[in-house]
Amino acid sequence: MPLARLTIVGTGLIGASLGLAARTKGVRVAGWDPDPRALSVAAERGAVERADSLEDALAGAELVVVAAPIAALPAQVAAVLAASSGETTVTDVGSTKESVVAGAAGSPRFVGGHPICGSEAHGPENASAGLFEGATWFLTPTAHTDPDSHRLVHGFVSDLGAFPVVIDPVAHDRLVALTSHLPHVIANVIINRAGASRVEGHDAIASAGGSLRDMTRIAGANPRMWIDIFIDNADALREELADMRRRIELVEEALAKGDVAFLADWIGEAAQNRRRMLESAYTDPGALQRVSVHVPDRPGVLAGIFQTLGAERINFQDFEFEHISPERGGTLTLLVGGEPVAQKAAALLESQGYGVVVGAVLDEG
Amino acid sequence: MPLARLTIVGTGLIGASLGLAARTKGVRVAGWDPDPRALSVAAERGAVERADSLEDALAGAELVVVAAPIAALPAQVAAVLAASSGETTVTDVGSTKESVVAGAAGSPRFVGGHPICGSEAHGPENASAGLFEGATWFLTPTAHTDPDSHRLVHGFVSDLGAFPVVIDPVAHDRLVALTSHLPHVIANVIINRAGASRVEGHDAIASAGGSLRDMTRIAGANPRMWIDIFIDNADALREELADMRRRIELVEEALAKGDVAFLADWIGEAAQNRRRMLESAYTDPGALQRVSVHVPDRPGVLAGIFQTLGAERINFQDFEFEHISPERGGTLTLLVGGEPVAQKAAALLESQGYGVVVGAVLDEG
Repeated sequence: MPLARLTIVGTGLIGASLGLAARTKGVRVAGWDPDPRALSVAAERGAVERADSLEDALAGAELVVVAAPIAALPAQVAAVLAASSGETTVTDVGSTKESVVAGAAGSPRFVGGHPICGSEAHGPENASAGLFEGATWFLTPTAHTDPDSHRLVHGFVSDLGAFPVVIDPVAHDRLVALTSHLPHVIANVIINRAGASRVEGHDAIASAGGSLRDMTRIAGANPRMWIDIFIDNADALREELADMRRRIELVEEALAKGDVAFLADWIGEAAQNRRRMLESAYTDPGALQRVSVHVPDRPGVLAGIFQTLGAERINFQDFEFEHISPERGGTLTLLVGGEPVAQKAAALLESQGYGVVVGAVLDEG
Repeated sequence: MPLARLTIVGTGLIGASLGLAARTKGVRVAGWDPDPRALSVAAERGAVERADSLEDALAGAELVVVAAPIAALPAQVAAVLAASSGETTVTDVGSTKESVVAGAAGSPRFVGGHPICGSEAHGPENASAGLFEGATWFLTPTAHTDPDSHRLVHGFVSDLGAFPVVIDPVAHDRLVALTSHLPHVIANVIINRAGASRVEGHDAIASAGGSLRDMTRIAGANPRMWIDIFIDNADALREELADMRRRIELVEEALAKGDVAFLADWIGEAAQNRRRMLESAYTDPGALQRVSVHVPDRPGVLAGIFQTLGAERINFQDFEFEHISPERGGTLTLLVGGEPVAQKAAALLESQGYGVVVGAVLDEG
């Protein structure tokens, strides 16, 4: 890594993980956090060398990463820019970008950043050098940004194994309003509806099947972080929510009229969009087959299944095991490439007494 | 199984799976389907003995299961009741219950049924005797139902390894409108919004993170089946969709006002509801830890990880592997019981060079 000295301001999960990752590349990393406990833990974990003050941490830094909570971020970035020399590039890792770019007030030394690491963990105790491997890392340089600062941050992010994607700060906030903040709101809305409802004594939460569980996995996550994100990106998020209501209303109207043609077009469009989404993850999503096996809740059962498949060199692309309950066991789902592989896996598992169901992942029939 | 003779009318995935499951219990199974191909495949797979007509199939049956598509179901049940003797009990496996119970017109010999098997597969070629193991199976007897018929179906369902749950037919349709039909509509709405949107050249579908993917797994599924379900349960589903719009609007209003207290209560409620949902699946959801590992897309890597964990007797409760892309690899997520187990797993995997992040599943901090 061409970078020699890095400073991290804010040593929570992201800051401390950045420190660990940079140190594995031979970078010297100074750290500071207004919370002495977070700073101590990060230093004990070897993520940063502990500085005694923000000023000490900034002395001689080539690059400063500000990893503060969203609500404090614009002011912290402004403070770091004010306290650092003209040679220092400053970036951040916040989930929204318009407010922090405004906080930097057109400084040529600031490049906004946002790694998508999808972790719901927090705190330096959970930091990991591998957090950014394979992740998309949005960068939001503006017309004011010094190209050298942009290049420095771009190179740093790539060296950590992440994939930098340059985007306008306002466009970034609209994009994550749709891809991340909207799903969080909807997950909360759905689980609260299910939690509020007893249908003649039947608890919707306890009757939840796989689809309700998939849709609400991110419900209730980390209120400290998410309230700030929702408030900071309120305008873009409100637009998404209003659009969502309009789309739901169209479905209600089609249902009221029994408009089968609308529903067919609408599901067909969803199938095409899902195919496009899978195409970004898999080489040939049309060939993907889902192999589902009901498995009792006993130690060793899953290990045995993986051994059986491994011995026959059956490769699976993705897999998932989901509990129903301790009494009922759970469902193991494997995604494999192509029907012959799926049928071979099914035959092997059926010969061991398991019930196996095979179906195409893209079921547009 | 006390049942000696079973007839299945409709030998698709569910009907043929029922035939396979019943035959493993020593029941004699006759089958009929208006589609000769579906009937041939089911007979070839050994799921049913092929009958030449509906009348032949019904002769001497103690129990008839009607496994027809939703739109044809009420008429098919009425026809089976008309053509069968007063000794024959009739049940069905449709996803909605009000219309088929109406089709049975108060017959004491009819007991509505709905197994929740969560499979998106279809066709007798994919049938499996294990499809119903551990599944919830709703039964909707009414005040008119003969207790002996109810007992027969209840016992049959239990003998297949499913868990019968008795519910009023109208209440059933309201419950599944919320737990199943609403999630399907919302998945379609969200993926179509993402598919329709390019934010300054950035494709929301290609930028989808894990949360958007989780929310849209069931998008675009099986239009032939789902259009009929949506139309049949239109009233209950429209009520759920209208309620959803009202709940979204409340969030929009809180965002417009910057109402942090509302958002905090709302996320707190979601966290409590999610905890309740997990309590139905796990003995101690509060102890669950999520261990996430970034894994390159190379053969043998996952098998190696499972061997490492297995050799140290680390049991995981659930797990999931999800591709990001062939270039970027994917993320393996394990759910384990308790922090000591999580830390042991993390240390083992880190010693092999993987980056590991650990966090509580119920992150209500």
